Amino acid sequence: MEKIVSLCKRRGFIFQASEIYGGLNGFFDYGPLGVEMRKNIKDAWWQDMVQRRDDIVGLDSAIIQHPKVWESSGHIQGFSDPMVDCRESKMRYRADQLFWAAVVVDGDILGYVSLLEDEGMEAKAAEMADTLKRKLQRQGTLQPIQLRPYTEASPDLYDKIPSPATGKPGTLTPPRDFNLMFQTYVGAVRDESSVAYLRPETAQGIFTNFKNVVDSTRVKIPFGIAQIGRSFRNEITPRNYIFRSREFEQMEMEFFIEPGDGWKQWHEYWIRERFEWHKSIGLKESMLGYQVHPKEKLAHYSQACTDITFHYPFGVQELEGIAARGCFDLTQHQNGSGKSMEYFDDTHKTKYIPRVIEPAVGVDRTFLALLCSAYEEDEIDGEPRVVLKLHPRIAPIKAAVFPLVKNKPELVEKAKTLFKKLQRRWNVAYDASGAIGRRYRRMDEVGTPFGITVDFETLENGTLTLRDRDTTKQVRLSEPELLAAIEKNLQQDL
Amino acid sequence: MEKIVSLCKRRGFIFQASEIYGGLNGFFDYGPLGVEMRKNIKDAWWQDMVQRRDDIVGLDSAIIQHPKVWESSGHIQGFSDPMVDCRESKMRYRADQLFWAAVVVDGDILGYVSLLEDEGMEAKAAEMADTLKRKLQRQGTLQPIQLRPYTEASPDLYDKIPSPATGKPGTLTPPRDFNLMFQTYVGAVRDESSVAYLRPETAQGIFTNFKNVVDSTRVKIPFGIAQIGRSFRNEITPRNYIFRSREFEQMEMEFFIEPGDGWKQWHEYWIRERFEWHKSIGLKESMLGYQVHPKEKLAHYSQACTDITFHYPFGVQELEGIAARGCFDLTQHQNGSGKSMEYFDDTHKTKYIPRVIEPAVGVDRTFLALLCSAYEEDEIDGEPRVVLKLHPRIAPIKAAVFPLVKNKPELVEKAKTLFKKLQRRWNVAYDASGAIGRRYRRMDEVGTPFGITVDFETLENGTLTLRDRDTTKQVRLSEPELLAAIEKNLQQDL
Repeated sequence: MEKIVSLCKRRGFIFQASEIYGGLNGFFDYGPLGVEMRKNIKDAWWQDMVQRRDDIVGLDSAIIQHPKVWESSGHIQGFSDPMVDCRESKMRYRADQLFWAAVVVDGDILGYVSLLEDEGMEAKAAEMADTLKRKLQRQGTLQPIQLRPYTEASPDLYDKIPSPATGKPGTLTPPRDFNLMFQTYVGAVRDESSVAYLRPETAQGIFTNFKNVVDSTRVKIPFGIAQIGRSFRNEITPRNYIFRSREFEQMEMEFFIEPGDGWKQWHEYWIRERFEWHKSIGLKESMLGYQVHPKEKLAHYSQACTDITFHYPFGVQELEGIAARGCFDLTQHQNGSGKSMEYFDDTHKTKYIPRVIEPAVGVDRTFLALLCSAYEEDEIDGEPRVVLKLHPRIAPIKAAVFPLVKNKPELVEKAKTLFKKLQRRWNVAYDASGAIGRRYRRMDEVGTPFGITVDFETLENGTLTLRDRDTTKQVRLSEPELLAAIEKNLQQDL
Repeated sequence: MEKIVSLCKRRGFIFQASEIYGGLNGFFDYGPLGVEMRKNIKDAWWQDMVQRRDDIVGLDSAIIQHPKVWESSGHIQGFSDPMVDCRESKMRYRADQLFWAAVVVDGDILGYVSLLEDEGMEAKAAEMADTLKRKLQRQGTLQPIQLRPYTEASPDLYDKIPSPATGKPGTLTPPRDFNLMFQTYVGAVRDESSVAYLRPETAQGIFTNFKNVVDSTRVKIPFGIAQIGRSFRNEITPRNYIFRSREFEQMEMEFFIEPGDGWKQWHEYWIRERFEWHKSIGLKESMLGYQVHPKEKLAHYSQACTDITFHYPFGVQELEGIAARGCFDLTQHQNGSGKSMEYFDDTHKTKYIPRVIEPAVGVDRTFLALLCSAYEEDEIDGEPRVVLKLHPRIAPIKAAVFPLVKNKPELVEKAKTLFKKLQRRWNVAYDASGAIGRRYRRMDEVGTPFGITVDFETLENGTLTLRDRDTTKQVRLSEPELLAAIEKNLQQDL
């Protein structure tokens, strides 16, 4: 993970936001290569979800909406995380990420240990228990540690569980709900009537426009509305780099279907589709997985939810959620606004509120997963190499043009002409400085899939060498063959 | 204007945000066609400003930055508009948009009139003055009306100038400054230490990352950093549809140059470049113009500023501003952060804080200008037609495929195959229902430049007819010729 963070900073993928002012926790800026890669992720999603499909249309709704939107959606009432404060250190934790256990020897409770959620927390907690036992010079057998989240501690334990910051008990507050929506005021007056929120998800902008889309286009159920955009959550503990940040970007699609049992098939369909999509943009299948949410953990309106997971360096985590949300959202907005959300099905001559399947994925989580999946260190001709094996559609730079030497004017001119031509359609690089091997390495490190060298043979017969980033193998091609190869790899061939 | 607003709603370009809850003043949602057109505007800017140039790189910074960014940039202190309230009607106005004049007859002041800034306000005010004179049954000659903004009223007049809402004097407050930044709080505590703002411009995210970009890329002065993103301004009176909204999207580029007189040439260069760009995406030259900001109206640090204007239905307004900002912003951030913003020029072996030329344009303003420029009503074969003559790069749907009849399976299959092929690369439509003339009209109204008809001759020799939206002329082409024609018009040919 540290290697990826360092590469991202060094090569201009990701910077800490407001870095010169010490940064702002949970916010990130994307540099010259990062912005290209982000755009590629979004464009690939849009292309595959909207442009290339006949049954999905796009939308772009405002970040700030009428506060009643969030009242109807349930976010004002229920979009909160349990929070716990350490009164001494002033540290703040998510109560469901703070774990604790009793340290028990031969049936006696010696005390409690606590720590933050982590892949290796079981082992660490056992060690902490052992330390406590030795400190108290207690003989006997330590019972196996049973970690539970702070949200499941009974109130009499709040004073006994130590703070992870100080290691001492008595400073943690009881857990309390903290709404994750950022609040602001619209207009010059600051009072109840002008409160507004930054959207915590893009989905509600789709639901509120359901009728507008039906009335202004020719969509017929089953159909989807897709949206890409920033969302904001005032996370208590932003962490894991860009994985859980306070400002992030989502790619969400609401797929509207008719009532009845058909939702199960559509849910399955979208789980499969989205899993295949993640593979198609280059995520290693071995790092992907599924997690089915157990029935008892679902929200009351939810019919089912399956996550597509990715094995990040900090653990297996949700990459995308595919939820069967029933008719909850549209019904809530119908009740809240008094406007009908019914759809008239002119095949069956019936009216109903459609059911919804929602595949929702984060741009930033996908970005990080792609970097983790693509990062490799190998050896080329006995030299160590860092390479990002990014899919060509995702790579920030599509191709680099290298004149073999820089002191041969015809060769340089030929290379520049080709570069200018490629630049018309793609983000490409031109590099004439340094040994050719070094130039390859610079491009390997940022995932550029194609290296094109203009050499002396090019001047004779117009052919060029195309170097594959992953195998480092080179082939000699004519210019039309080369352009066709790039188009095909970028899935832009007609 | 009403025609454009109505077309936008009817065909799914633009909806009022939170419409089902009565809307939220100053916020808009973009529907299925609007989101495509917005994306086309942004992609065209990015392609021409970043991808196709060797001297500009991109960036994507967070909307929420450390509050010190806005302290250094001067926004906390100075980013405000003068506001005036009507105590009776509770209406709120921008004081510089509220105009007033004394009504004078033969040297006597009869009273005052007031109204909101408007193209025809001079005539209206003269009429109001005349009405007042007649109401007071006063004889004599009315002096010509001299309108001035409320900000230039002396304090003794605040009680005498009538409110535009009620027509009565005595209810307007003195003007006072109102900061336009939306405020929020980051973290669970709401106090001074957690205040943050939604960015009012994307530019500062570029300045704060100046060193990060220099250190992580190979840029050399002169070079630019470009960014597209949402910005937020808590406008006192959002108006003119999407022209002045509270949430909007900007396309800004900061072009860094060396100190000295060279800035004048670069300023001229960017004014020309940007003017040509607006023409290149289809804005009529006759509707474009320039407005040079007079020296005395420039901010103290500003060297010069020229607007590219557009003649909107509500008047000639700023479309893009090209500002020569000197070294103000980088110097402010150097002072505020204590981090050096100096650039080491290794050609001249000198260090300096670069100067900046900033072309900044709004996506939404460009969107509206394009619609206004493209909207036409004409007659085709004696029938009235509404057509959006959008440039092919901007048009939300690039081409529509029509099978001439829908009851001939081979013809339909041929049309669908072509549609699927085009869909791989572009946003295209397929329409088989209704008379061919009606299908053309539907596409003309949303600006689709190419209509492709698959007819009986297609089955014989593979040729297709390509209909030009503007001339309605048709030519017969082979499929490769057709693809080449579309590519060329979209400026995607290699």
